[in-house]
Amino acid sequence: MNRREFNSRLAAVAAGPLLKPHLLLTPSEQLINGERLNRHLKELSEFGKNPQGGVDRVAYSEADRQARSYALNLMRAARLETRIDAAGNIVGRRAGRDPRLAPLLVGSHIDSVPDGGNYDGDVGSLSAIEVAQTLAEKNITTRHPIEIIIFENEEGGLLGSLALIGDLTDRELDQVSRSGKTIREGIRLIGGDPAGLDSVRLKRGDIAAYLELHIEQGGILDSEKIDIGIVEGIVGIRWWDVTVEGFANHAGTTPMNQRHDALLAAARFIQAVNRIVTVIPGWQVGTVGQIQAFPGAPNVIPGKVTLSLELRDLDAQKIETLFRQINAEAARIGEESGTRFAFHETSVNVPAPTDERVRRFILESSQELGLKAKLVPSGAGHDAQDMARLAPMGMIFVPTVGGISHSPKEYTQPQDVVNGANVLLKTLLKLDTASWL
Amino acid sequence: MNRREFNSRLAAVAAGPLLKPHLLLTPSEQLINGERLNRHLKELSEFGKNPQGGVDRVAYSEADRQARSYALNLMRAARLETRIDAAGNIVGRRAGRDPRLAPLLVGSHIDSVPDGGNYDGDVGSLSAIEVAQTLAEKNITTRHPIEIIIFENEEGGLLGSLALIGDLTDRELDQVSRSGKTIREGIRLIGGDPAGLDSVRLKRGDIAAYLELHIEQGGILDSEKIDIGIVEGIVGIRWWDVTVEGFANHAGTTPMNQRHDALLAAARFIQAVNRIVTVIPGWQVGTVGQIQAFPGAPNVIPGKVTLSLELRDLDAQKIETLFRQINAEAARIGEESGTRFAFHETSVNVPAPTDERVRRFILESSQELGLKAKLVPSGAGHDAQDMARLAPMGMIFVPTVGGISHSPKEYTQPQDVVNGANVLLKTLLKLDTASWL
Repeated sequence: MNRREFNSRLAAVAAGPLLKPHLLLTPSEQLINGERLNRHLKELSEFGKNPQGGVDRVAYSEADRQARSYALNLMRAARLETRIDAAGNIVGRRAGRDPRLAPLLVGSHIDSVPDGGNYDGDVGSLSAIEVAQTLAEKNITTRHPIEIIIFENEEGGLLGSLALIGDLTDRELDQVSRSGKTIREGIRLIGGDPAGLDSVRLKRGDIAAYLELHIEQGGILDSEKIDIGIVEGIVGIRWWDVTVEGFANHAGTTPMNQRHDALLAAARFIQAVNRIVTVIPGWQVGTVGQIQAFPGAPNVIPGKVTLSLELRDLDAQKIETLFRQINAEAARIGEESGTRFAFHETSVNVPAPTDERVRRFILESSQELGLKAKLVPSGAGHDAQDMARLAPMGMIFVPTVGGISHSPKEYTQPQDVVNGANVLLKTLLKLDTASWL
Repeated sequence: MNRREFNSRLAAVAAGPLLKPHLLLTPSEQLINGERLNRHLKELSEFGKNPQGGVDRVAYSEADRQARSYALNLMRAARLETRIDAAGNIVGRRAGRDPRLAPLLVGSHIDSVPDGGNYDGDVGSLSAIEVAQTLAEKNITTRHPIEIIIFENEEGGLLGSLALIGDLTDRELDQVSRSGKTIREGIRLIGGDPAGLDSVRLKRGDIAAYLELHIEQGGILDSEKIDIGIVEGIVGIRWWDVTVEGFANHAGTTPMNQRHDALLAAARFIQAVNRIVTVIPGWQVGTVGQIQAFPGAPNVIPGKVTLSLELRDLDAQKIETLFRQINAEAARIGEESGTRFAFHETSVNVPAPTDERVRRFILESSQELGLKAKLVPSGAGHDAQDMARLAPMGMIFVPTVGGISHSPKEYTQPQDVVNGANVLLKTLLKLDTASWL
C-alpha cells in the first residue's frame, strides 16, 4: 500500500462504518497522566541545561550520566525491573502473563547533540516510562513482557541499537565520541561492558515488536495541523564525497574564457542536484552541506573543490535513479567547463520501512482518541531502523513547532506530547493482543 | 587612445611609411647579451630551488638573502654604484651626463611566492641589470642617471614600492610576512632601516620615468603568438567579503520546499558573477576564490555561507558598474530563495594606466627589432602601479607559456627573455632623449 492509497484509506476509515461511536470512548484506564509526563520532561531538561534554553547532553558527558540516573529512578518508580546491558542501554522490564512470549520493546534515547533541544529522544523515552507507570498504576498485565529501553548514544550513530543487531564492532568502539572519550571508554563509564557485547546481540524473534514515539523534527505535521504522524519508514541515506578538478590560476591574468574554474562548475552542480531532486514529486531530499575550494584565496581561480552529496528517500531504487541523473549531469557540466567530477561513496543506510500492521494500529489508536493522523516519512535516522531488522517496527511522530530540531528552539506542545504517549499506550496494547504476534 | 585605436594604429604603423628599412637595422651597440642574461636567470634559480623545479624564495628567507647578495654582485660587475635603501630595496646607479636630471628608474623584484617559478620578477630584475651592463660595456653614457632597482617583498604586497610612495606604515610593518617574520624584522634583516623610511619617500619629479619588464603571467601573448605586450595599464582590483544568510536545518527532515539553503543561493550567485562579468566584451575579470559553508556537515542544510568576490578592470567605473549589477542580482537571488546577501568591501586598488608616450616608445622599439607587439592589460599587480604615482610609467610584457604563473611550471622561452631585455634597453634610450623628459 503506497502513501496515497493509505491516506485515502485513512479518509475512508474516518468517514466509514469502522469509526463507530464506541471507539471514540476512551476508557480512562487507557490514558496516561499527561501532567506527570510533561513535568518529567521539564525535570529531565535540567541535566545539561544551557543558557540558550536547550541542553548540551552528549553521550558519556556528566549531564548524560545524571540524566540516565534520573531515568533509571523513574523506571524504578514505575515498578520496572531495571538493568544496564553490556552496550550501556538502560532496560526496564515488566513481566507479562505468558512467559513464553518475547517482549514488546518500547523506547528512545535521552542523549542530545551539542546545543540540542528538550524533545528529540526525551519525549519518546519518558512517554515509554509513563506508559509503564500507567500499566503499573492501573494494574494492567499484558500477555507479553514489556521492555522499556533507553538506547545509549543515539546521536553519535545509533550505537546502542547497533549493539543489539551485532553491528557494534571494534571499528566503532575505537572512535572518539563528541564527549572526547572513545565509544569504548564511554560505554564503560555508563556501566556497560564493551567486552561482553555478545550478550546483548539479538536475533529475529527475540523481541515481538518495537515501538518508538518521537518528535517529527520536520515541519509537515505542524504546518498541516496534523496531531499524529504514522511513520511510513525511515529513509535510506547515501553519502558521497564529490571532487571537482579544474585548474588553479591567477585571477588577474587569466581571461574568463581561459579558465577551468572548479568552483564555478561546483556551483552549477549544486543547482543541478536541487533541480534533479525537486523536479519529481515525492519526499526525496538532496543536500550539499559541505564545500571547500582550493587553494582558497580571493585572487586565485579555484583549481579543486570538494563537496558532500547526501540523498535520502524511502525507496532505495529512487535514490539510485537520482544519483545516476546527478552523476550524468555532473559529467555534462565537467565537459562543458573543462573540469572533472569524481564521486566517492562514503556511507549507505538502507531504507527501513515500518510494519504495515503496526501502522494500522497507530491509525486506529489515533482515531479512537479523535486525533488527526497522516502517513509521513522519517527523514532522520532512529534506533528504530536497526530494530526493524529484528521485528515488526512502528514509529509514532508528534509535531515539532516550525520543524526546528537539533536546536534549543526545538519545541513540541505539551498536549502533543500527551497525545503521542496515549497513542503509544493504545498501540502497545493492540500489539499485545494482535493475533499475528 | 583606447585599445582598439591603438592596435589599429599599430597595424597602420607596421604597414606604413614609418616602418622604414633603416629602422630595422639594429646597431649592435643597442643589443644586450642574451646568452649571459639567460645564464644569470639560471644561476638565480638556484637560490631557493625546490624539487618541483621552481623556487621557494619568499621575502626575508635565507634564499631571498642569498639571491639579493647574488644580484648585488651582478650590479657591481655592471659598474653600478650600489646601495640598500631604508626600505631594503637594492638600488644600483649609473651616472648620466646631466647631473640636474632625475634618474630613469628600471627594475622589478626577485622574491617569489611559496612554490613559485623562475621568471616572475627575475626576468625584469636581471634584464635591468643586463641593460646597465650593456651600457657599461659599450660605454654609452645617457643624459639621465639610470637607477636599477630590485624592490623588496613584491609578492607580500609591493612593500618596497609602497615605501617609495610613503605608504609603508606601521600597520604594514607590524604584519607577519610569509617568512614568519614581521615586515619590520624582515626589512632589518635585509639591511634596511624601518625607522628611516622617510629617507626613501619620493615625490613627483624625483624620478624621470619608471620602466619594468615582466612576464605576462596570462596567456594572451602565448596563445596569439605575440612577442611583446605593451601594457595598457595595471588593473584596478576590488575585494569584497560576501555573506549569505539562510537557515540551517536538518537535511533529512526539512522538505526541499521549506529550505532556506544558503549554499544553494551562493551557487546561483557564483554563476551570476560569471555571467555578469562575461556578458560584455572587455578584459574585466571576476572571481569567487574562497567559500565556506556553515555549519558544514553533509546532513545539515547550510544556514550561512561566506565567499570572496574580486573584480578587476583597467576602468574603475566599469568595476563599479559590474559590482552594482552583481549586488542587484544578489538581492534578487536572496528574495527568491529566502536568504540575505551582504557585501563588505575589504580592499581597493585603483587602476594604474601606463603613460601613452612610453607605450609609443615600446611599440617603436619592438618594431625596430622586428617583433610583434600588442596592447594588453596587466591583470596582476606590480610595483609599477606605485611608481605610476610618481612619474610616467611603462611596462613591457613577454609571453608566459600556457599563461601559467606562480607555479614551478612557469616558463618563458630564452628568446622571449632576450627580446624583452632588448626592448627594455631601446625604450630606455628613447626615454633618455625624449623631449618631454
